[in-house]
Amino acid sequence: MMNLMEDEVFRAFSTYAAVVVVKMMLMSMLTAAFRFSRGAFANEEDVAIKPPEERKKMLRTDPGVERVRRCHLNDLENIVPFVALGLLYSLSGPELSCALLHFRLFVGSRIFHTVSYVCTLPQPCRALSYLLGWFTNLSMAYRLMSSYMAL
Amino acid sequence: MMNLMEDEVFRAFSTYAAVVVVKMMLMSMLTAAFRFSRGAFANEEDVAIKPPEERKKMLRTDPGVERVRRCHLNDLENIVPFVALGLLYSLSGPELSCALLHFRLFVGSRIFHTVSYVCTLPQPCRALSYLLGWFTNLSMAYRLMSSYMAL
Amino acid sequence: MMNLMEDEVFRAFSTYAAVVVVKMMLMSMLTAAFRFSRGAFANEEDVAIKPPEERKKMLRTDPGVERVRRCHLNDLENIVPFVALGLLYSLSGPELSCALLHFRLFVGSRIFHTVSYVCTLPQPCRALSYLLGWFTNLSMAYRLMSSYMAL
Repeated sequence: MMNLMEDEVFRAFSTYAAVVVVKMMLMSMLTAAFRFSRGAFANEEDVAIKPPEERKKMLRTDPGVERVRRCHLNDLENIVPFVALGLLYSLSGPELSCALLHFRLFVGSRIFHTVSYVCTLPQPCRALSYLLGWFTNLSMAYRLMSSYMAL
Repeated sequence: MMNLMEDEVFRAFSTYAAVVVVKMMLMSMLTAAFRFSRGAFANEEDVAIKPPEERKKMLRTDPGVERVRRCHLNDLENIVPFVALGLLYSLSGPELSCALLHFRLFVGSRIFHTVSYVCTLPQPCRALSYLLGWFTNLSMAYRLMSSYMAL
Repeated sequence: MMNLMEDEVFRAFSTYAAVVVVKMMLMSMLTAAFRFSRGAFANEEDVAIKPPEERKKMLRTDPGVERVRRCHLNDLENIVPFVALGLLYSLSGPELSCALLHFRLFVGSRIFHTVSYVCTLPQPCRALSYLLGWFTNLSMAYRLMSSYMAL
């Protein structure tokens, strides 16, 4: 049973996957922080304790909140492929150094992507960090399909 | 091959993950039900059988539909971390009682979160159920990283 | 360690999961292509190289871009359950022919769903391909829960 965690590649994958998933989880907290600091909520029940005249003003979309939400959705769109492909790739017996390179590039690219997005760094910071993560995922998919193609 | 499913923790994880993923899948059906009952669609082809004068009126956003969609997206943002972290956590050899506590708290919190969101229960119902699930995920991530850290 | 990939069902799952995840990853590139061809961006920094008077016009939502984004989100909502349930289902020892039927139906249904959505095929093309994928996921969840229920 414990044999998977005895494998160095799988243990490395677990650690990097946990790091990048926790990073994604922090985006919800950042959205909540932006919603409170900007006073921009999406649901009536969230502003129910405010006086009635203020409520309507607080049920609005705010550009800062929308930016964090787009960043969160972008994370989801890229971290789901990483977790799925990375898990299967780890089980396909890659070399440790090659696997570590993939995991580190991906996690680094996503952290830099979040910084670029939330802090509005000038392009092409966000585009390049995005593409780096995307091609890392593609490389793992390619390795997986070329070694274990079974349609 | 079957050794994973012979492990009690992994079998429990499979069951709880299946329950919470099926709950998430039901959100699409709920969105469709709201779209039909409220007559609020997003795509032209969905209203093509209606007479032309009615079509434009049905291509609109409805607050009820948007609420269900936000709930669905929130599920996705939280159930993806649960599936990823829970799978790796199950493989890291936790005690069965401790693992069951995590799985039950998470699944319970998400079911209560959906009820709070869709039925517009007063706050802090939704916030507390959200935070309970969030911290359950964080606790699994912490356990995973503290036992198997391999950067 | 390599015993999972020696299993025929698991190897088939890896291949189909990689195919459908790569298909989902291509949706980001399609969104980017639509954003450039339609000139409809979401972030100020993306249009910073344009002359100031053009910038405002390019920060807009475009129906074509929104359609691709809804298709991408729909993929995420359905491929996440496939990856989670399919992985656990593969480990639960199904017959190869039955597993292949599930994987092929799902992957086929999602490819047809994307074509229906992006090319605006008349309904019920999109609805039927959606439901086919949804029920394939449900069937795997049912098999999993009926064989390994451990609450």
